[in-house]
Amino acid sequence: MKLAVLGVGLIGGSIGLAARGRAGAQVCGYDPDGEVLDRALALGAIDSRAADIAEAVAQAQVVFVAAPVGALAATVAAALAAAGEDCVVSDVGSTKRLLAAAGADGRFIGGHPLAGAETAGVEHARADLFDGATWYLTPAQGATTGTLYERLHRLLASLGAHPTAIDPETHDRLMARVSHLPHVLANLLVGGASDLLGEGKSERLPAVGPSFRDATRVAGANSAIWTDIYMSNRDALIDCIEELSGRLAEVREWLAEGRAPALHDWNERAREQREVLLGSGLVGGEAGEPVQELRVSVPNRPGVIAEIALALGRAGVNILDMALAPSQQESQGVVALWIAGEEPLERAGGLIADLGFPVVRA
Amino acid sequence: MKLAVLGVGLIGGSIGLAARGRAGAQVCGYDPDGEVLDRALALGAIDSRAADIAEAVAQAQVVFVAAPVGALAATVAAALAAAGEDCVVSDVGSTKRLLAAAGADGRFIGGHPLAGAETAGVEHARADLFDGATWYLTPAQGATTGTLYERLHRLLASLGAHPTAIDPETHDRLMARVSHLPHVLANLLVGGASDLLGEGKSERLPAVGPSFRDATRVAGANSAIWTDIYMSNRDALIDCIEELSGRLAEVREWLAEGRAPALHDWNERAREQREVLLGSGLVGGEAGEPVQELRVSVPNRPGVIAEIALALGRAGVNILDMALAPSQQESQGVVALWIAGEEPLERAGGLIADLGFPVVRA
Repeated sequence: MKLAVLGVGLIGGSIGLAARGRAGAQVCGYDPDGEVLDRALALGAIDSRAADIAEAVAQAQVVFVAAPVGALAATVAAALAAAGEDCVVSDVGSTKRLLAAAGADGRFIGGHPLAGAETAGVEHARADLFDGATWYLTPAQGATTGTLYERLHRLLASLGAHPTAIDPETHDRLMARVSHLPHVLANLLVGGASDLLGEGKSERLPAVGPSFRDATRVAGANSAIWTDIYMSNRDALIDCIEELSGRLAEVREWLAEGRAPALHDWNERAREQREVLLGSGLVGGEAGEPVQELRVSVPNRPGVIAEIALALGRAGVNILDMALAPSQQESQGVVALWIAGEEPLERAGGLIADLGFPVVRA
Repeated sequence: MKLAVLGVGLIGGSIGLAARGRAGAQVCGYDPDGEVLDRALALGAIDSRAADIAEAVAQAQVVFVAAPVGALAATVAAALAAAGEDCVVSDVGSTKRLLAAAGADGRFIGGHPLAGAETAGVEHARADLFDGATWYLTPAQGATTGTLYERLHRLLASLGAHPTAIDPETHDRLMARVSHLPHVLANLLVGGASDLLGEGKSERLPAVGPSFRDATRVAGANSAIWTDIYMSNRDALIDCIEELSGRLAEVREWLAEGRAPALHDWNERAREQREVLLGSGLVGGEAGEPVQELRVSVPNRPGVIAEIALALGRAGVNILDMALAPSQQESQGVVALWIAGEEPLERAGGLIADLGFPVVRA
């Protein structure tokens, strides 16, 4: 398989290393910074360097745009303009509505790997960066073709990631809550602790427990990247901050009024909520359950695979692998899906049947 | 050495296990719940069980009160009433002003190990619970006698902890910022993520990155313990919440006004602040630096050891061990302090000289 990687920093470089080492792909790299491109070549993250986007993309079957958020839209547009009919173009940006709104080219599938946002630079690129990491994909309903989605899904799985379909709106609201807001709070907690030092009451901050270390691990993550992330998801993040401020005011009231039972109930609720989140697979790995195959008959039109993938993604079903099986008829196709565990398989079968597609276990 | 442990839950039980296994101490336990006491005996956390506080304390040289916050003041008072002249009484409560204000008995030294607040019950007690953990001590200036402070310090070090002196006021404000506020935020983050589930947009919360796991690890920690902690440190925690709310409003403004440079600068500042906190020993272990001894001549009156320990604690100097060396004169004593590393040793020498005590390297 031939890949183009546009932007060979931490993420682009890691894609190159993993794709070359694990998927046997040939990777052509492009970066506006020639020195970075040289370094990527020296580190083995790419097989060859291109002089511009068009040259990088010319032969590619899959293009990854790993440019900074500011250059993302223009780079994706340039890649689509230069790419062939049978080429899938994806990106790795931390928010997904912006690009989804930009256009509905069936060859573009937005992406976001949950890995590596704390550092930057091709020097830190690793072939195992995506091992076990969720890699969100935002296929466009009605536009994304099955063959391109399947190709991208399979490639990402071979890099060690878990590709999961999600709609761009849900993705951005989710990330505001579970990633961007925690980063804001980590910065503010560090600032508060630092103020204690500044008061001169203590020459050094005394030792503290592990909860503070955990809560502030991501404080002051790469400023260029995170300014872009905050800016590109402003509205969703503002919603989260407003809601949190309201909740903080409530807790403050309970404390001021000495309402111990309210604090107790609230803490119990958090305990139960955490258990639900744990149960939903938010935390913790997967058991080594047997992998089984589902076969789905689908009409031969763009967007069908996206529809199925989004339905399963919403329900938390992890598609380990997928394939488009050959079919006698031109108007019908068959999609094979591999899923681990009896319960997710049952659920997936039900959800696909609800969409109106005939489904059987292989 | 003979110990009494009043309240044999997670912390009391772990003190018993560590003191018996590592310090060769004899541990007598008391707990108002007879079944818990039986379990502690069966698990080897205590050598014997007492019928009441007076019986437990009768022969003890060190008493640990590990009762819930609600019963703490009464239990400490009962222990002091029953304890002999040459007995040190300590507690393990998460806030320290309350008891410090309650009285100035020279035999009482408040304590707080930074370990184990997330679970409860003697079933979870472990001899290694305090390994490497800071154990705050709040000796009373002018009241705490040197022999009792030294005995407690040495015992805690033998349990694997790092005893560090701190004044009660600083302790409680510090804990509000670096522990109690992060716990509040963990609960609120879990609640927010849980609301996303409740909206029915998603049947399950999709996978998220490690920053959310880290930020919410302590959510819904033991409700009885944490309600007590929040209530006993209400005023300091309210201060933190108010300050955080103000900072959140500021970040919200930057986002609403699209002020990318302000966000960038703020994030850079957090990065620098985190480095300072890292440099101050907040995060990270100690190198295996050579241990050296300081000898300090001190007047023979209560509170002198507390004064030295507090000065070093404030400066972040870790006293590994201490001893009261015998002296010819009744009016003078000699304190030996062991400290790791050249730089902390230099600093300690300077600080002690500033207090007006003659100090030499042994």
